[in-house]
Amino acid sequence: MKIGLDVLGGDFAPKATMHGAILARKELPESDQIVLIGDREVIHAFLREEKVDPGNFEIVDAPDLIEMDEQPTKALINKPNSSISVGFRLLKHKEIHAFAGAGSSGAMMVGAIYTVNTVQGIIRPATTAYIPKENGGTSVLIDVGTNPDAKPDVMYQFGILGSLFAEHVFHIKKPRVGLLNIGSEEKKGSLTVQSAFQLMKDSKDYHFVGNVEGRELFRDNVDVIVCDGFVGNIVLKQVEAMYRVMIKRGIRDSYLDRFNYENYGGTPILGINSTVLVGHGISNANAIRRMILMTKEVHEARLSQKIKHALERYSPNNM
Amino acid sequence: MKIGLDVLGGDFAPKATMHGAILARKELPESDQIVLIGDREVIHAFLREEKVDPGNFEIVDAPDLIEMDEQPTKALINKPNSSISVGFRLLKHKEIHAFAGAGSSGAMMVGAIYTVNTVQGIIRPATTAYIPKENGGTSVLIDVGTNPDAKPDVMYQFGILGSLFAEHVFHIKKPRVGLLNIGSEEKKGSLTVQSAFQLMKDSKDYHFVGNVEGRELFRDNVDVIVCDGFVGNIVLKQVEAMYRVMIKRGIRDSYLDRFNYENYGGTPILGINSTVLVGHGISNANAIRRMILMTKEVHEARLSQKIKHALERYSPNNM
Repeated sequence: MKIGLDVLGGDFAPKATMHGAILARKELPESDQIVLIGDREVIHAFLREEKVDPGNFEIVDAPDLIEMDEQPTKALINKPNSSISVGFRLLKHKEIHAFAGAGSSGAMMVGAIYTVNTVQGIIRPATTAYIPKENGGTSVLIDVGTNPDAKPDVMYQFGILGSLFAEHVFHIKKPRVGLLNIGSEEKKGSLTVQSAFQLMKDSKDYHFVGNVEGRELFRDNVDVIVCDGFVGNIVLKQVEAMYRVMIKRGIRDSYLDRFNYENYGGTPILGINSTVLVGHGISNANAIRRMILMTKEVHEARLSQKIKHALERYSPNNM
Repeated sequence: MKIGLDVLGGDFAPKATMHGAILARKELPESDQIVLIGDREVIHAFLREEKVDPGNFEIVDAPDLIEMDEQPTKALINKPNSSISVGFRLLKHKEIHAFAGAGSSGAMMVGAIYTVNTVQGIIRPATTAYIPKENGGTSVLIDVGTNPDAKPDVMYQFGILGSLFAEHVFHIKKPRVGLLNIGSEEKKGSLTVQSAFQLMKDSKDYHFVGNVEGRELFRDNVDVIVCDGFVGNIVLKQVEAMYRVMIKRGIRDSYLDRFNYENYGGTPILGINSTVLVGHGISNANAIRRMILMTKEVHEARLSQKIKHALERYSPNNM
């Protein structure tokens, strides 16, 4: 397979992205190819300096950069030669099979929606995060920022997306899907969340187990935690904040180590017709390496096809 | 002053509440009185066993208990002799000056609204939590569960309530009020939060400093963090969950210690015409002791009067 990498994306690009690509290259089988998408001259100069044979990679020139604070849609239109625009063009024309980048997550989302499109029937694609459980497992938190105003039907679909992800990438059989809420009873929470509960409670699309509270976040009560993108983003950033404080205070602990974003490197945009992974803006070389390897895992799990099949069976009227 | 204590409230009542009252009694000046509200026989038996002179306390008989899962309004009507009903009756008739309890927080809120009433002009009272900052300070998080569907105008008022609390109880001059959001720009976040930002940005009622993100939660960027009760409750429970995990893993750290709820014991219901403090359901004796002492602090800060005065100056049309 061919994995496209946005060489210009991320706070420490292109050094971290190039180093990450070189590391990942060593771990991928010969049959896989990393396609470096970015300023050709910069890429070549870097490989020369690192004494790495450019023949190890495919290189596609894309000299422009979409900045983190640019309005995504405008930036994609105005900068057709940006690494993100070029990456999605390659993905659309199947010149790469998957695309990964740690640049503007807004531009990655908009690019995905406008080139490879959302899966038929999906109202809104979503982004995820991984929450380490105390007992060693991992929960999938969905959504983490793409949909701050998710409606109940959108939240219902997050259950489908998260469940398929947990099943096919984390290999959890019959994932338990929970709804993040402020109490265990079905009449608890905001009106939106109460409505989402009503849609989810008899779901035939996944195994809904009820509400999950903030205090259960690290327990093994569920495998998928559904919430709107506003709440999910706050939860995720808070987890990261606590991790950073603990590390800064010199606390070392094997459970705490699992909160290091480098372990995963990136998370997929779920609900689109291809494999697109988004990395953390602060990604270092190891995070980029993991993001590339994770991209392969998600692609080979045929996740977008599985979501497509699930959506063919899914009927909102039967919810 | 007379501080009423719900002796029956909390998972470990009446043992924890009685022990807490005995501890607090030793620290309060002679002129202050703790009024024990609960089953008179149980209270007397306990004091006898502990060899404590009943003359140290005022005792008011209230043999019934409102359970945690009872519907608050119904429970208050159906159980006029419950410790919470009796407590609010005493508060309404000024036979106590403040009321504290670790029982049903829903019943405490409903009881407060229906007996002492909300301050004129306050749309919805709110509850708070304390977030320890890395540098030693404390932020006030408001709301933490009372208003899961808070509208922008309600969130605007949380700024008033939180700011006055930070100023008069935590003695922070000109508290910095932030809006919990998923980005720093004013167009970020849910539609409700975006509207709240527009109301808050030119506030003359408090010092608004803009959005605060989940990753800044433990930093010293703001003194008051405004959010709806849904988000606030998730944040609070997540903080507690992480604290418990770390303690369980044997991690000891002076910053982490500050997350122990016992340090404060209870938080006030803000926006009502009296002083009412709500404790954590799992309160032990030390937490009850701290809640009683905190009740005195909040009462002596004349917080409800200050909120009343602020609301007289406040004009929603000038926001």
